[in-house]
Amino acid sequence: MSSRENSLRALEQIGKILSEQVLHSKPLTLEIPVRTLANVVWDPRSKLLKLGSRKLRREFLDMGEARRFTQTILMLSLIVRAIREGDYPTIRDLYYAGKHTIEYRDEYNRLRREETWDDQKESDSVIQDIEVLTGFLREHMGILHDTKGKIVGRIRIRSGADVIDCSRMGDGAYSIPPNPDSLEILGLEADYVLVIEKDAIFNRLNKERFWEKSKCLLITGKGQPDRSTRRMVRRLWEEHNLPVYVLTDADPYGFYIYSVYRSGSITLGFESDRLATPEARFLGLTVTDIYEYKIPRNFIIKAKDRDIKRAKELLNYPWFKQSKEWVKQLELFLEKQEKVEIEALSGYGFKFLTERYIPEKLYGSKWIE
Amino acid sequence: MSSRENSLRALEQIGKILSEQVLHSKPLTLEIPVRTLANVVWDPRSKLLKLGSRKLRREFLDMGEARRFTQTILMLSLIVRAIREGDYPTIRDLYYAGKHTIEYRDEYNRLRREETWDDQKESDSVIQDIEVLTGFLREHMGILHDTKGKIVGRIRIRSGADVIDCSRMGDGAYSIPPNPDSLEILGLEADYVLVIEKDAIFNRLNKERFWEKSKCLLITGKGQPDRSTRRMVRRLWEEHNLPVYVLTDADPYGFYIYSVYRSGSITLGFESDRLATPEARFLGLTVTDIYEYKIPRNFIIKAKDRDIKRAKELLNYPWFKQSKEWVKQLELFLEKQEKVEIEALSGYGFKFLTERYIPEKLYGSKWIE
Repeated sequence: MSSRENSLRALEQIGKILSEQVLHSKPLTLEIPVRTLANVVWDPRSKLLKLGSRKLRREFLDMGEARRFTQTILMLSLIVRAIREGDYPTIRDLYYAGKHTIEYRDEYNRLRREETWDDQKESDSVIQDIEVLTGFLREHMGILHDTKGKIVGRIRIRSGADVIDCSRMGDGAYSIPPNPDSLEILGLEADYVLVIEKDAIFNRLNKERFWEKSKCLLITGKGQPDRSTRRMVRRLWEEHNLPVYVLTDADPYGFYIYSVYRSGSITLGFESDRLATPEARFLGLTVTDIYEYKIPRNFIIKAKDRDIKRAKELLNYPWFKQSKEWVKQLELFLEKQEKVEIEALSGYGFKFLTERYIPEKLYGSKWIE
Repeated sequence: MSSRENSLRALEQIGKILSEQVLHSKPLTLEIPVRTLANVVWDPRSKLLKLGSRKLRREFLDMGEARRFTQTILMLSLIVRAIREGDYPTIRDLYYAGKHTIEYRDEYNRLRREETWDDQKESDSVIQDIEVLTGFLREHMGILHDTKGKIVGRIRIRSGADVIDCSRMGDGAYSIPPNPDSLEILGLEADYVLVIEKDAIFNRLNKERFWEKSKCLLITGKGQPDRSTRRMVRRLWEEHNLPVYVLTDADPYGFYIYSVYRSGSITLGFESDRLATPEARFLGLTVTDIYEYKIPRNFIIKAKDRDIKRAKELLNYPWFKQSKEWVKQLELFLEKQEKVEIEALSGYGFKFLTERYIPEKLYGSKWIE
C-alpha cells in the first residue's frame, strides 16, 4: 500500500472519531501534539529535535478555538477529497481551495463575515497540525511544493513505472521528486553521500564526474534545502548506511545549512525524525581552514552583522553547544569575524577542491561531527 | 567539433591578434562591441534585442583603459587554460582564480597596489566582454553557473555518452545541464512546449502526467529563468518548430518572466539571439482573466508599489508597447491595481487548470503574442 493510501486511512480515522463524537452527542474535540518551541526538545541519544509529550485539546465549542477547529476540519476534508479524486494539490492550491468567506448572524442578528483563513501561513500551519495529528508528512499525502534537490551517481531508483539510473544523466542530473518516500531504491554503488551547498559547485563536480572517480552520490539542495532533499539524504543514510558529508562555505549560513541537514530546523522540529540525518558530518570549509589553507587575505570577506547574529544563535543550538569542535569554530569566527567561500580554493587551481581538499578531509578523517 | 573546442579557437585567435600586435610593435588594442543600453537596439523584424554596430577600442597604453584591458587578457588566459586542462570552472571560480594584488612602483618610485578585480561584478562583466568579442556564450566555453531548469515529456536527449529519456523520470524531472548546446536532441514527440513559471505547478502537472495527456514538453525555470533554461526553450522552438507557451501568475512579475523568455533581459540584450524565443506566446493568467474567470474577490491581491513600477517599465519595452493587447492588459492592471496567482484557479477545483483553463486558452487561440 502506498504512503498516500496509508495517510488516507489515518485521515479517515480522524473523521471517524469526530463523527462518533457527534453520534454520541459528545463535544467535538481533537487532541493535537503541541508544535511550539516550548514542546520541541533535543534528544541527545538520537541527536534529534523531537516533539515533547504535550498535547492540546482543540474544542469546537470553545469560542477561542472554534476558528482553528473549523480550519482543521476544512483542511482535512480538502486533503481527503484530493486523495480520493487522484489530485495532487500544492500547499498554495490548498490555501485557495479552502479560502472562502463564511457569513453568519451573531446573537444580535447582525450579519458578520469571517474568512476561513487570511493568508497561506494560516493554512500551512493547519497542514502541520494535520501532520503531527496523523503521523504522516504532507508529502505522504501527495501535497506538492517547490523542489530544489538534484542527485547524480550510481543509484537506480524506481518512481512509478520508470526506472531512473542517476549515473546516466550526462551533464544534467535527476531532479528529486516532491515525495522521496514514493521512490524505491533498487540498488546503489557508492561509499558515501556528498551534499553540496551550492548548485554551481554541484554542476562542476558532476561535470568532472567526481561521483564516478570517488564512488559517491552527489546531492545539492541549492542553499537552504527543501524537505524532499533532506528526506532523500536521510533515506540514504538510514536505509543504506551511507555516511553523509556536507560541503559548504566557511560562514554561519553554511554551518546553518549543515545544521538543517543534520538536526532539522527548530521551527520544523516535529519532522526531524524523518527529515534529519543526525550523523551527517561537516566536511568544511571550517573557520580554521581559512588559516590552515592560508587563504589569501584578499579572498577573505568581512562578516556582516547578520553573520555575527547567526553565529551567536548557532552557539545556542544543543548540537553545536555540546560539540567542543563546533564551539571552537564558532568562537574563532566571532573573534576573527571573517568568512570565505568554497570557490576561494580555486585560487590554488580549479582541481584543488576535488584532488586535494576533499580527499584530505575525507581520508584524513578531518570532518566535524 | 564541440562548441568548447570552437570557442577555444576563437579565444586563441584573439591571443594571436594581440601577439602579432606585439611582434609588429603596434599598440595593444582590442575592438569590443559596446554592451551598454545605448547600443542595444530592438529589431522589430526578428523581434529581438540586438547589439548595435558600435564598437569600442580598448588600448593597453591608455591610462583609463589599462586596467580593463589587463582584466580582459587575464580572463582570456584563465578560460583558455581551463579549456586546455579540461576544467569546468564556475564564474565565481574564475573570479577567485584571477583575483590577486599587483604591486608596482609609480613614477615617483612609490610602491602601489592594485587588485586585479574588486568584486565578481567586475570579473563577470569581463566574461561578457569576451562573449561579445568571440561570439561564443560562456556556456560554450564550459564555464558553469547555477542552473534552475527542469524538463519532462517525450524527448530523448544525448548528453556525453548518456541517452536521457525525459518521459521516464517518474515523479521527478531532468535537470537541464549548464550548457544545453552540448545536448543532442535525438527525437521528440510533442506538439508544443509549456513553460511554467512556478516549480510547484510544474510538479503538479508532472504528477498528473499532463505532458502525456496533452502531448507537450513541460519546462520550468523556477521564476526568473537562468540562461540554460532559456537556451533550451529557444532550441526547441528554433530547431524543432515547437510553439512555446508561457504560464505565469497575473502580475507584472509574471509578465516580466514571459518577456525574458520572449525577448531577453535588457541587460543581457547581446545574448538574445541565442537565448530568446521571439515567438513565445503568453498563455496567462492575464489581467482580463481575473474578471472573465470571475476570480473571487478574496483571492485578489492588492498590487504593491513595486508591481506598479514594473508595469510602467514594461509599458516602455518595445515588444509590449507595440502590442495592442499587451497595452490593454498593462493599462487595465494600472487602473485596477489588482493581481492574482495561478493557484487561485484551484478555487474551482484542482483540475480546473489542466482540464479547463489551459485547453480553453490553447484550443481557443486565446494567448497573447
